[in-house]
Amino acid sequence: MRTRPGRRDEVVALLLGNQEGLRSAGCELYAVGTSPSEPDLVWVQEVWLSKAHHDASLELPDTRAAIAAAMPMLTGEFTGQEIDIVGGLGIAESADAADPAAAGPEHQPWAAG
Amino acid sequence: MRTRPGRRDEVVALLLGNQEGLRSAGCELYAVGTSPSEPDLVWVQEVWLSKAHHDASLELPDTRAAIAAAMPMLTGEFTGQEIDIVGGLGIAESADAADPAAAGPEHQPWAAG
Repeated sequence: MRTRPGRRDEVVALLLGNQEGLRSAGCELYAVGTSPSEPDLVWVQEVWLSKAHHDASLELPDTRAAIAAAMPMLTGEFTGQEIDIVGGLGIAESADAADPAAAGPEHQPWAAG
Repeated sequence: MRTRPGRRDEVVALLLGNQEGLRSAGCELYAVGTSPSEPDLVWVQEVWLSKAHHDASLELPDTRAAIAAAMPMLTGEFTGQEIDIVGGLGIAESADAADPAAAGPEHQPWAAG
């Protein structure tokens, strides 16, 4: 996402403000980063137990408050990619289930970045 | 990355073949995923202790062998984004150092996806 000039660090602080809430909502990774080349860009890589966990998290009061606080500092330029995780290093055992396809989408590890 | 038609699962298997090697090279996350909408796309989200760790890993024999094996199955279409991680959930303590900027780039958590 792109922030209005000079607001990047405030947006980063907001994004980093509720990590325990993310964890309890089913988030396995929430890596907030900046660009070496563009000072107003913020990147977030997320890994969730499932897309359903992610979608539900957007309704949490803390999440809604953080989004509302961040919006005026953003230009509206967003890019993103959703993926179905099929395996890898650093994915929690609970997310890296043996056969998520058989278990249904609520058990399919899911990521955005 | 985009694979030649029908080769996606072989590429995924190659990418998942050396997780312990990745870990010992300084990789914290290596999440391999597929697209819900495009059957020949493979996405990899990576988090490393530093960009230097990532770059060094590309010279490892196992990595070079996996790249060589995968190349004929790929179309050559790649996209990617490198970011400097400033914090977040699920980043190892060793990577999520208090002040990586002061410690120098070899201690700056780094991600690609």
